[in-house]
Amino acid sequence: MSERAEAIAAKVEAFVRETVFPYEKDPRATSHGPTDELVQEMRAKAGAAGVLTPHILSDGSHLNQRETAIVLKKSGLSPLGPLAVNTMAPDEGNIYLLGKVGTPEQQRRFLDRLVSGESRSAFFMTEPASEGGAGSDPSMMRTTCRLDGNHWVIDGRKAFITGAQGAKVGIVMAKAEEGACMFLVDLPDPAIRIERLLETIDSSMPGGHAVVAIDNLRVPADQMLGAAGEGFKYAQVRLSPARLSHCMRWHGCATRAQEIATDYACRREAFGKKLVDHEGVGFMLAENLIDLKQAELMIDWCADVLDSGSLGTVESSMAKVAVSEALYRVADRCVQVMGGTGVSGDTVVEQIFREIRAFRIYDGPTEVHKWSLAKKIKRDHAR
Amino acid sequence: MSERAEAIAAKVEAFVRETVFPYEKDPRATSHGPTDELVQEMRAKAGAAGVLTPHILSDGSHLNQRETAIVLKKSGLSPLGPLAVNTMAPDEGNIYLLGKVGTPEQQRRFLDRLVSGESRSAFFMTEPASEGGAGSDPSMMRTTCRLDGNHWVIDGRKAFITGAQGAKVGIVMAKAEEGACMFLVDLPDPAIRIERLLETIDSSMPGGHAVVAIDNLRVPADQMLGAAGEGFKYAQVRLSPARLSHCMRWHGCATRAQEIATDYACRREAFGKKLVDHEGVGFMLAENLIDLKQAELMIDWCADVLDSGSLGTVESSMAKVAVSEALYRVADRCVQVMGGTGVSGDTVVEQIFREIRAFRIYDGPTEVHKWSLAKKIKRDHAR
Amino acid sequence: MSERAEAIAAKVEAFVRETVFPYEKDPRATSHGPTDELVQEMRAKAGAAGVLTPHILSDGSHLNQRETAIVLKKSGLSPLGPLAVNTMAPDEGNIYLLGKVGTPEQQRRFLDRLVSGESRSAFFMTEPASEGGAGSDPSMMRTTCRLDGNHWVIDGRKAFITGAQGAKVGIVMAKAEEGACMFLVDLPDPAIRIERLLETIDSSMPGGHAVVAIDNLRVPADQMLGAAGEGFKYAQVRLSPARLSHCMRWHGCATRAQEIATDYACRREAFGKKLVDHEGVGFMLAENLIDLKQAELMIDWCADVLDSGSLGTVESSMAKVAVSEALYRVADRCVQVMGGTGVSGDTVVEQIFREIRAFRIYDGPTEVHKWSLAKKIKRDHAR
Amino acid sequence: MSERAEAIAAKVEAFVRETVFPYEKDPRATSHGPTDELVQEMRAKAGAAGVLTPHILSDGSHLNQRETAIVLKKSGLSPLGPLAVNTMAPDEGNIYLLGKVGTPEQQRRFLDRLVSGESRSAFFMTEPASEGGAGSDPSMMRTTCRLDGNHWVIDGRKAFITGAQGAKVGIVMAKAEEGACMFLVDLPDPAIRIERLLETIDSSMPGGHAVVAIDNLRVPADQMLGAAGEGFKYAQVRLSPARLSHCMRWHGCATRAQEIATDYACRREAFGKKLVDHEGVGFMLAENLIDLKQAELMIDWCADVLDSGSLGTVESSMAKVAVSEALYRVADRCVQVMGGTGVSGDTVVEQIFREIRAFRIYDGPTEVHKWSLAKKIKRDHAR
Repeated sequence: MSERAEAIAAKVEAFVRETVFPYEKDPRATSHGPTDELVQEMRAKAGAAGVLTPHILSDGSHLNQRETAIVLKKSGLSPLGPLAVNTMAPDEGNIYLLGKVGTPEQQRRFLDRLVSGESRSAFFMTEPASEGGAGSDPSMMRTTCRLDGNHWVIDGRKAFITGAQGAKVGIVMAKAEEGACMFLVDLPDPAIRIERLLETIDSSMPGGHAVVAIDNLRVPADQMLGAAGEGFKYAQVRLSPARLSHCMRWHGCATRAQEIATDYACRREAFGKKLVDHEGVGFMLAENLIDLKQAELMIDWCADVLDSGSLGTVESSMAKVAVSEALYRVADRCVQVMGGTGVSGDTVVEQIFREIRAFRIYDGPTEVHKWSLAKKIKRDHAR
Repeated sequence: MSERAEAIAAKVEAFVRETVFPYEKDPRATSHGPTDELVQEMRAKAGAAGVLTPHILSDGSHLNQRETAIVLKKSGLSPLGPLAVNTMAPDEGNIYLLGKVGTPEQQRRFLDRLVSGESRSAFFMTEPASEGGAGSDPSMMRTTCRLDGNHWVIDGRKAFITGAQGAKVGIVMAKAEEGACMFLVDLPDPAIRIERLLETIDSSMPGGHAVVAIDNLRVPADQMLGAAGEGFKYAQVRLSPARLSHCMRWHGCATRAQEIATDYACRREAFGKKLVDHEGVGFMLAENLIDLKQAELMIDWCADVLDSGSLGTVESSMAKVAVSEALYRVADRCVQVMGGTGVSGDTVVEQIFREIRAFRIYDGPTEVHKWSLAKKIKRDHAR
Repeated sequence: MSERAEAIAAKVEAFVRETVFPYEKDPRATSHGPTDELVQEMRAKAGAAGVLTPHILSDGSHLNQRETAIVLKKSGLSPLGPLAVNTMAPDEGNIYLLGKVGTPEQQRRFLDRLVSGESRSAFFMTEPASEGGAGSDPSMMRTTCRLDGNHWVIDGRKAFITGAQGAKVGIVMAKAEEGACMFLVDLPDPAIRIERLLETIDSSMPGGHAVVAIDNLRVPADQMLGAAGEGFKYAQVRLSPARLSHCMRWHGCATRAQEIATDYACRREAFGKKLVDHEGVGFMLAENLIDLKQAELMIDWCADVLDSGSLGTVESSMAKVAVSEALYRVADRCVQVMGGTGVSGDTVVEQIFREIRAFRIYDGPTEVHKWSLAKKIKRDHAR
Repeated sequence: MSERAEAIAAKVEAFVRETVFPYEKDPRATSHGPTDELVQEMRAKAGAAGVLTPHILSDGSHLNQRETAIVLKKSGLSPLGPLAVNTMAPDEGNIYLLGKVGTPEQQRRFLDRLVSGESRSAFFMTEPASEGGAGSDPSMMRTTCRLDGNHWVIDGRKAFITGAQGAKVGIVMAKAEEGACMFLVDLPDPAIRIERLLETIDSSMPGGHAVVAIDNLRVPADQMLGAAGEGFKYAQVRLSPARLSHCMRWHGCATRAQEIATDYACRREAFGKKLVDHEGVGFMLAENLIDLKQAELMIDWCADVLDSGSLGTVESSMAKVAVSEALYRVADRCVQVMGGTGVSGDTVVEQIFREIRAFRIYDGPTEVHKWSLAKKIKRDHAR
């Protein structure tokens, strides 16, 4: 399709296979994600190989979404790949948002070091469900901000803040009288305290997922991102591309799992023949082939919608549900095909399974998306 | 995408909605399919509306597969639609095959009246499974042909021959010493005796599905289609486009079911609110939205593969499994959403459900396709 | 377990296999169910074989639910079996209700001829969903009754009234000021007009399913069943046993489908070996084995709950969902195992599939039961 | 049912809820299972509470399987419960086997300290799949034993040996000329070297799962368990009860997950109402209710089969598939209901999900059981 994207993707794939795969057994890849030391070590190599932040061109322009898909799928062949080449969440989405809404000055101060891979960032939106907070329902946001002279003062608590630990740049969302607002902040900041890191089933995100208390955080007014009261609009701008880039990366992961499971099934024998020659196994691999293709087509379709200029809220909901559920089926079948080896850490399939289990919940659980799609169906009927 | 295809499809859709839908309650739409009287009555109107055999242009050229999809989906909005506009199986596939392999003389004698919608045709390939015959396994074909002077003599039995009853043109497959052969025959012919019509769960095919005895059928040598021994190759040529056109038509059917179920759910109340406002119902409609989109994307992808010149055997297997299973889930959910009305003939949803149940078996059951995909996965790994 | 029940069941099974199976191809088994002529012909033979109304003993006492399960499963081995031996819906439930609530005089006038199999009955409860009526939600009942001297006058419309056509006894439900009431009526009655028979996907019920208008029906006051205002309570009494007897009969049907599919798979070859030796087929039969066992265990568990004296509303909801969905999976896999033969009327599997599809909706769609189970979970948590 | 079992189960439940639940956050519950220090600390409390090895009575007799189910389900309410009260695998199965086959002298030396909870044991049967070894196919066993004077000499490699690290008693299976043999050994033994502990998705087994090299292990002849060549027979004796006890314990786990998810859904709000009032959530909890009941019924049914004296090989295969798949659906839905909290370690639901994922593979993957059930169906048909 796109020759430039294909060329970039080929380089990324070679880098991930040759250089990143061996890091998968590195002890610095902890259950709270790789350490920043490991991230920086991989990024140095990615820089040398010319594959760092590969979806952003040297002139600062971005590949379009359809092209991005080609590249990000390859970066996702390892859970460590997106970190190594700087295509991971939440940075990829934060970069996108800053590119769209940030002032030149804000971009100079906060964006450039994200694009270069020098710093990591975090997006402070979701709040603790257990205290009557937002969870998946943004209308329940409780974190507040108020203008005090030339500063905004922010108070509240945030939960499931991916990468907060170790991040150097933060985008914080809070509610003012005018509505939701977004702020850029340098991290760490003593007013943003990491209460604890969640233990989660996934383990690919550097800095893990944190619960954070924001206590009297004072942000200079010129660090507001965009205009006051427009926070939800910006969240919408970030939303669909960020969702879709999850789909892209995890498609790469699931593809890798299928490679490993296929290799396993083609080599190993049981009950008198190769595993792959047992229909019980071969059919699972065939179903994976179909699911991976369908997921790819959904990603490409949604990418085209976004590239046409639409917000793509409905389409990215559809893609998120379809892709996360399909890739999960793929990962689950790969585990099952591999038996005891599948549930062990002897291959990366076990981790991929855990990562994709979380994907069915991150960025909106399947059920929340179905709920909003049902609303849309009703709206369309009323017309 | 294609403006000409969009324009044709719009005319077909208008015709099917306005003219064909009312025929769905016509008593001539029997459990063995519509009578030929009904077919001809609808075709006369389709001719007048300029939508007869709409995927073949006036110069005899065909829309490509991607364009055909746009048109055939619209024709499928009613189970009667493909009959009315002459896009149905097995004629659509037979027309395609004759266009590719037939001599000009054969095309003049057999093809023209199919394109004009004047005659129907049947494809005599599958054999009775219950007698150790072929079923889904073409290697087990038992019908034979042998040259006797200037004629071929054919003997055997065929099963599940769609539309044989009432067809005027037949394509008969048989095995010679050279391998499989195909023959064009005028029907009816006393040597081809319809033993019985099967009662089947579907009811949209005119002529139903027949079990046929072929007893000393003598066919002039110039009615052989293509060359002796090449029959399986021609079957392959016909195979993928025919499979895919099933997917297109049935996609239209399932879309119709979703329209009806949505309308039902948006109008009717139970337990204190509109059905669509019950998540148990709304989620099913949302899942349908996703399944329909995925099925459409698989069809378009496979169409592109065919349009690129590939036989598309693997891709059409993948599409057939994915699309038939997805559309079946759609139809099943529509029935469920509509409760008692869903299992009644009060709407066409009940018939659509039955048609698509059969689709999971016709043109190769899901399991046969998975079996061949598993073989492909193994082959690819060996490379 | 119960020797007397096992002995009765053995006789019923022998009768159904030897005498009823051959009737499955009888043309009098129409798409609106068997004709009454056919029903009476089979019942005469059942009477002679000593298996008519086998769950009611000669002294008028009933087998308990656990024993009834043993017998009704065997009667269900053919879709015609319950009709032949008089264990079918709605009669079985009506008999149960009349036995519990009817006065001796009412039992003499209405019950005895049902137990003897001489007459059929209908239960007039559900109303047309399409007119804002009740569907699965009994609180929306619109049919009214009012006392006029010594008679009750009933007006309304009923839908999906199984067996109304040809029934001699009716139980009619209507709303008075006091609440819901039930009435016993002789049929036919000119004030109860069958507007039309629904075409439905199932075809085992004699008299099919009717839409009925009740226009100024006058019922003598002594034909009220039980007390005024207690109608919903009686409906509850009938509800769980009737639901469960559906599960029993359809378990028999699905068991039959498994027998036929197993036989097919063990005899027929494709792609070089017996179908059953293809894991793709063998696994489906294995899944059926498990599903049939689980369904049986759910039936027995719920039967024990009812036999302990509980209304079993929750348990019969659980059983209905679990059993109908499990048996449907069984029937669907049997169709799939048998390929083209599975969707044809060559065996009874195709009909069984259609019957059980309807079962997922009849007596409350799966979703309505899940809805009420979720309410129960919430109630239990609140305690 | 059984009053004595109910009384024991009530004590076990109280102990697990009050004493074991708090240990779930103990750092000694590592990803390779709890440390032996933690195990012994919990067992001391269990002994004091009179709930240690509760399925074995003071006279050495065992509860029957049906009774055992009642007790083991309660012990499984926490992943730590079976360890705390000594009902866990592989000890429970090893105890059972030693009780059946061991000589009085062997029981004195090896069994008593297992029953008392003083020592743990391991069962050395499965072998590395990756080296052409056995995996799920016992016929491929490669570990050998040969008589050398008064000792047997054993050589080979074993994989997935649960609890080998820290076990004091081992049962080792190896092949002699006479067939398979079993041996009792004291552990640790320098001839049995733990090559490595597998990282696995589950984390409840003390000692984790080890790969073990056996190099010139010399076992006195009187430590052979039973007779030479009878090893597979003894493995069969152990097989079904051990499989079933897995089902029992994990049923407890899944029940716990449902409790937690229900509590979460009944407390927390989103999109304007309590989660449980969203049908998308309430239906999942309702499906869990049904799945848990069905799993319980399958366990009880299989227990009755075993208690009747049957080996129950077929029945325990059916139960293992049905129960593991049902409990996995339950755990998966609980995770989904709880959203971000569900994939975090904030509750034990996340661990339960991982444990039960492994359960679909341990003791024979689902597919291996379906394979053997399909064989049985074929055998039964041939008769």
